[in-house]
Amino acid sequence: MLNRVRSAVAHLVSSGGVPSPRPKSPDLPNSTSAPPAAFPEAPRSPPVKAGVSATTTDARASFSRPTFLQLSPGGLRRADDQAGRVVQSPPDTGRRLPWSTGYAEVINAGKSRHNEDQACCEVVYVEGRRSVSGAPKESSTSQGLCFYYWGLFDGHAGGGAAEMASRLLHRHIREKLKDLVEILQDPSPPPLCLSSSPGASDPSHMVGPQSYWSSQKEVTHESLVVGAIENAFRLMDEQMAQERHGHQVEGGCCALVVIYLLGKVYVANAGDSRAIIVRNGEIIPMSREFTPETERRRLQLLGFLKPELLGSEFTHLEFPRRIQPKELGQRMLYRDQNMTGWAYKKIELEDLRFPLVCGEGKKARVMATIGVTRGLGDHNLKVCSSTLPIKPFLSCFPEVQVYDLTQYEHCPDDVLVLGTDGLWDVTSDHDVAATVDRVLSAYEPNDSSRYTALAQALVLGARGTPRDRGWRLPNNKLGSGDDISVFVIPLGGPGSYS
Amino acid sequence: MLNRVRSAVAHLVSSGGVPSPRPKSPDLPNSTSAPPAAFPEAPRSPPVKAGVSATTTDARASFSRPTFLQLSPGGLRRADDQAGRVVQSPPDTGRRLPWSTGYAEVINAGKSRHNEDQACCEVVYVEGRRSVSGAPKESSTSQGLCFYYWGLFDGHAGGGAAEMASRLLHRHIREKLKDLVEILQDPSPPPLCLSSSPGASDPSHMVGPQSYWSSQKEVTHESLVVGAIENAFRLMDEQMAQERHGHQVEGGCCALVVIYLLGKVYVANAGDSRAIIVRNGEIIPMSREFTPETERRRLQLLGFLKPELLGSEFTHLEFPRRIQPKELGQRMLYRDQNMTGWAYKKIELEDLRFPLVCGEGKKARVMATIGVTRGLGDHNLKVCSSTLPIKPFLSCFPEVQVYDLTQYEHCPDDVLVLGTDGLWDVTSDHDVAATVDRVLSAYEPNDSSRYTALAQALVLGARGTPRDRGWRLPNNKLGSGDDISVFVIPLGGPGSYS
Repeated sequence: MLNRVRSAVAHLVSSGGVPSPRPKSPDLPNSTSAPPAAFPEAPRSPPVKAGVSATTTDARASFSRPTFLQLSPGGLRRADDQAGRVVQSPPDTGRRLPWSTGYAEVINAGKSRHNEDQACCEVVYVEGRRSVSGAPKESSTSQGLCFYYWGLFDGHAGGGAAEMASRLLHRHIREKLKDLVEILQDPSPPPLCLSSSPGASDPSHMVGPQSYWSSQKEVTHESLVVGAIENAFRLMDEQMAQERHGHQVEGGCCALVVIYLLGKVYVANAGDSRAIIVRNGEIIPMSREFTPETERRRLQLLGFLKPELLGSEFTHLEFPRRIQPKELGQRMLYRDQNMTGWAYKKIELEDLRFPLVCGEGKKARVMATIGVTRGLGDHNLKVCSSTLPIKPFLSCFPEVQVYDLTQYEHCPDDVLVLGTDGLWDVTSDHDVAATVDRVLSAYEPNDSSRYTALAQALVLGARGTPRDRGWRLPNNKLGSGDDISVFVIPLGGPGSYS
Repeated sequence: MLNRVRSAVAHLVSSGGVPSPRPKSPDLPNSTSAPPAAFPEAPRSPPVKAGVSATTTDARASFSRPTFLQLSPGGLRRADDQAGRVVQSPPDTGRRLPWSTGYAEVINAGKSRHNEDQACCEVVYVEGRRSVSGAPKESSTSQGLCFYYWGLFDGHAGGGAAEMASRLLHRHIREKLKDLVEILQDPSPPPLCLSSSPGASDPSHMVGPQSYWSSQKEVTHESLVVGAIENAFRLMDEQMAQERHGHQVEGGCCALVVIYLLGKVYVANAGDSRAIIVRNGEIIPMSREFTPETERRRLQLLGFLKPELLGSEFTHLEFPRRIQPKELGQRMLYRDQNMTGWAYKKIELEDLRFPLVCGEGKKARVMATIGVTRGLGDHNLKVCSSTLPIKPFLSCFPEVQVYDLTQYEHCPDDVLVLGTDGLWDVTSDHDVAATVDRVLSAYEPNDSSRYTALAQALVLGARGTPRDRGWRLPNNKLGSGDDISVFVIPLGGPGSYS
């Protein structure tokens, strides 16, 4: 068994791939997978049938793109063409995206059958569920809340998880915010405890002998929104687990989500997509990537504390290269869950197991299988040739960063750029900032097409142009062969706060 | 049992103390507790007998200060006087500290019987243990290494751990560096594997079919030093565990250690001491504090994965205040190991347990017992009125930050300041930078007493002056009643690189 896994994973690592079969993108029919959050009213672009033999009941062979692209059947076929790799954006003539948002995307160069990225851009209204005091809500005084929502979902091993997340995650967020509608609009500190009996006093602010602790934590409105987003990600992941058989939610996805609510921008990232703000030429990182390298110590700690998750094939120790059996007894560099540095240890039999975390950069893998450590889905993912599940090592929780939009006077050229890893694999933050400057300065500040033009320029710049057996960048390096999706959200300027 | 613990810990938290008996500082006699690292040759200042009935065999009643203070028996008594709180520094007339280092300390205002801080400043020579190739070492070609070493150890619940660490930790570091003497002096990349047979080739750089992985990690010399420091901390902690009964190594200690080796400064911190560089007026943080608040998620994850460590008294969930039994069924804010935000949950019976992490700021506690989460020792520490050990939640591993001294031209006023929390509780980084500027500008750049004068000014400024029933700062706030120890290490200027 050990040798079989070793051989299989060695092959996989050297080929840099996820050990999935040829990915298939399941369709999620609107009529059946609604609860707990119903599907959006607006249907996706109609599915393209992948082969002549496909029937409408073969959900796995269908493919759709974000509704806001307003693609015709012909347009959808062009979007699915891996030879042409046409850059797609919402049409100039149609309904514009909320907040003057720019968007562009392109399919991969053959890495998977369809584009496994998905995107969503919505304005979501949240109606309050109940009053804080527990008393019946008075409709005359209760005002709902609106939030703006942008989501990029980078699927892997199938497009099902990304598509499901793009349709439902904002609805989970809405559900979690329903409890907070009144609290968030009340400038006084949030109650620490909500009484279930109408009219009962909130004992949160009691001090003195009644309180066991000498103090109580101050909880901000902002941290309630962060908690709502975190729990919405968890519920989305739980829903995928529950519905993965009925609706064939194959694969998993990284999720990068932005919410604008009550003056603040919340950027939630689970995976290896990235968000940056470019403000007056300055770069402000708004996310961190979660990969086997950046999360090595969390993964190793879990493997150390729960060795049953490693089976008999893996070790929680990290080594800088594969150990060969003949090296038994020699001294090799290693590091464990507590170390950032390296030290030598004598190689023992257990060290010949495959390391939980191995490889570098884009080739880094957990259990030789997956290259991202946070995201939604992946409930069926197993180590190749093994029954060991990967999911316990993956986290569905995002890291949320908050940017207060009211603290700074933004000009029309200040933008928040969201991109899947297809963009960032070949484009640095500084490249993006330079493109922001170059493209936006060529357009009038009040030209509403400038942000889509910028998104297109970013996608084109990362994709490259077809030349010399590949998609080449101007420096003749290979462009990204991955799916690329980009949102450009203006932080200031005409129409952006509408 | 639950109620007993709850009542006991509630009392402790509200009084803000560690639930130890009146701390006693054990003496570690030179003659017996040597291995694996022998005690330094220079003996400590002679122990002061704490009471008339004490005998020389009552190790727990003794007390000593760092050797480099060169205290006479009378000086040691003055250093132990909590009414006078005399600031102590190495004498002008004696041997200076290496690297023109400044140092000052003061005893607490009655918090514990003796000063539980300890300090060490040494130049350590490392002789190589073996040649890299495994061949017998040729003495003519093998050169040893020197490193400069500074350590601050802030003891709690007794002075034993701090004293032991101040005498031995640099020796553990020396031991771990012995393996690296040749490797660190060889500019080529460190070998990933050391052959045990003389003359055998190092297969580290093999590529191609022999290698299972497609790549191998590049390991730097710097990361080997970091690994050596990390493992030295672990060994020091293990030695304390082994010898805690024989030598009464009571309590634990935070450890802040600086090493200068081959052009680089390594700052290793385990606890709530702090190191900052003040360079041309700019503040560069060189450490992070490890407290129940900063390490909440690590602690909660451990409690979640190993619930047996929590017994039946604690929950891994965090609540913003103590829940009262009558609130059962109501909805309370909480967060778990995955969350940075807060959300409401219905209060269930398990939530009435005491939270693993509670309190804020200096009153934050793990299991209502201890306010720091990293350091050495504490092997006997139990939750009050319980047999639950705290140690599994504490980490002996430091975080190591590296500063390349050769990358910048330093002036004589650029310094690295190390202080125990007694300094930082009442002094901000900016306060320290202002004092650096004020004091150093009053001395000639080549006056070697200027760094000790700065350390004294920092300690005096944090201690305050006796006034109005307390030690008051100029703004009439209370000064630190804690032990305070400060090192000032000049990064440039006359004599500092000698």
